[in-house]
Amino acid sequence: MKVGVFDSGVGGLSVVKSLLEHKLFSEIIYLGDTARVPYGSKDKNTIIRYSLEALEFFKNFKIDMMITACNSVSAYAINELRENAPFKVIGVIEPGVKALVNKIEKKDAKILITGTKATISSKKYETLLKIAGYKNLIQKATPLFVPLVEEGIFEGEILEAALRHYFEDIKEPDAFIMGCTHFPLIENEFKKFYKNSLFIHSGEAIVKYLEEEFCLTNTFQDTELKLFATENPDYLKLVAKRWLN
Amino acid sequence: MKVGVFDSGVGGLSVVKSLLEHKLFSEIIYLGDTARVPYGSKDKNTIIRYSLEALEFFKNFKIDMMITACNSVSAYAINELRENAPFKVIGVIEPGVKALVNKIEKKDAKILITGTKATISSKKYETLLKIAGYKNLIQKATPLFVPLVEEGIFEGEILEAALRHYFEDIKEPDAFIMGCTHFPLIENEFKKFYKNSLFIHSGEAIVKYLEEEFCLTNTFQDTELKLFATENPDYLKLVAKRWLN
Repeated sequence: MKVGVFDSGVGGLSVVKSLLEHKLFSEIIYLGDTARVPYGSKDKNTIIRYSLEALEFFKNFKIDMMITACNSVSAYAINELRENAPFKVIGVIEPGVKALVNKIEKKDAKILITGTKATISSKKYETLLKIAGYKNLIQKATPLFVPLVEEGIFEGEILEAALRHYFEDIKEPDAFIMGCTHFPLIENEFKKFYKNSLFIHSGEAIVKYLEEEFCLTNTFQDTELKLFATENPDYLKLVAKRWLN
Repeated sequence: MKVGVFDSGVGGLSVVKSLLEHKLFSEIIYLGDTARVPYGSKDKNTIIRYSLEALEFFKNFKIDMMITACNSVSAYAINELRENAPFKVIGVIEPGVKALVNKIEKKDAKILITGTKATISSKKYETLLKIAGYKNLIQKATPLFVPLVEEGIFEGEILEAALRHYFEDIKEPDAFIMGCTHFPLIENEFKKFYKNSLFIHSGEAIVKYLEEEFCLTNTFQDTELKLFATENPDYLKLVAKRWLN
């Protein structure tokens, strides 16, 4: 079972981490569009264009499935990818919503959706959660967390100030959707701010989704990981070493 | 006199502001590569490729001169642009260094060079300042200031924490080079941190440079400003309204 994982940059490695831990694939081909990262501040048409270019790349490999780890891609380009792909294409938003539905029964639960500007303006999480019956939704674009994580800041006073900047006026939600691949890397800091919220993590959500919807199981002893980047592949490898050991 | 101003995004408007104030041109054509901003985290070859694409755009207009407002472009692509352009190409780094040389006589003055990762790793400021005889140089990549400014954060606790993060261990320099078009927008905060430093501003430096090297003078009553963006031109216009009135 071969999967292609597409991300705007290095952040999608947090999804790869979950896939590796659960041994669902024999081979993972990762493409990070590091030359054009971040996608979260770009507009819909640009994100679609870049995603279709990534699709052409993956067509060169005999993959069984493509996962778009990037929430902005999942929000804007998933339909276009599905229309043009000869294999299954799975985003991170539907699995994230499904994970929440599985865990939160109360339809009036307060749900805080965070992400890049693109992901939040797409209202994709909001739409799906409303369909699932949830009424008490707060959407908050929190773009600063991406450059902070990329700067290697995982704790400390800048991050604490940024948390206050975004969340000061939002009382503790029942669930907190980390709608960006970078956010799981500072999950501990979110948890210090909101001590009792349930946190939704794209990587874990997608593993659960693959197990349930595609009956994938912990089958492969070893997973071969191939990393590609549109620029600076050494940096991608460095981050992969650090995050994935 | 027509000039083309190229920038990776909206930041170059801080240079346009200075050009407008000094009325050096009858027409300014601005191109912001908003679809691929920021350049400051990209590698040399990517920056050169994007810059040459911008050059092709400017060839469609009868401009007399092209200014690369972006420090990362000025650091990496200026030679390639000059080789391929049918008009003069001027970066912001040489004018910045010249402005400093005009103001600081002491060759052992402590000079702090700030900018994106790309600008700092290019060592372009360092090289030119060393040629000019300065010995006491500190280079510091300060990439977080770009997303902070783009998030509309011009003061407050996040910015103060970011200033401490970068500058806590650096004692007040004699001169502080703002090696990124975004930085003049938070110059006041830099000045609170380093109260007695001389600040070098690319926009002001380039005006002085054009006056001295090209004998341009305050000639044009009105300047026509044409704005182009590779995506989301409305945002560019919005920022232009706010910064340039």
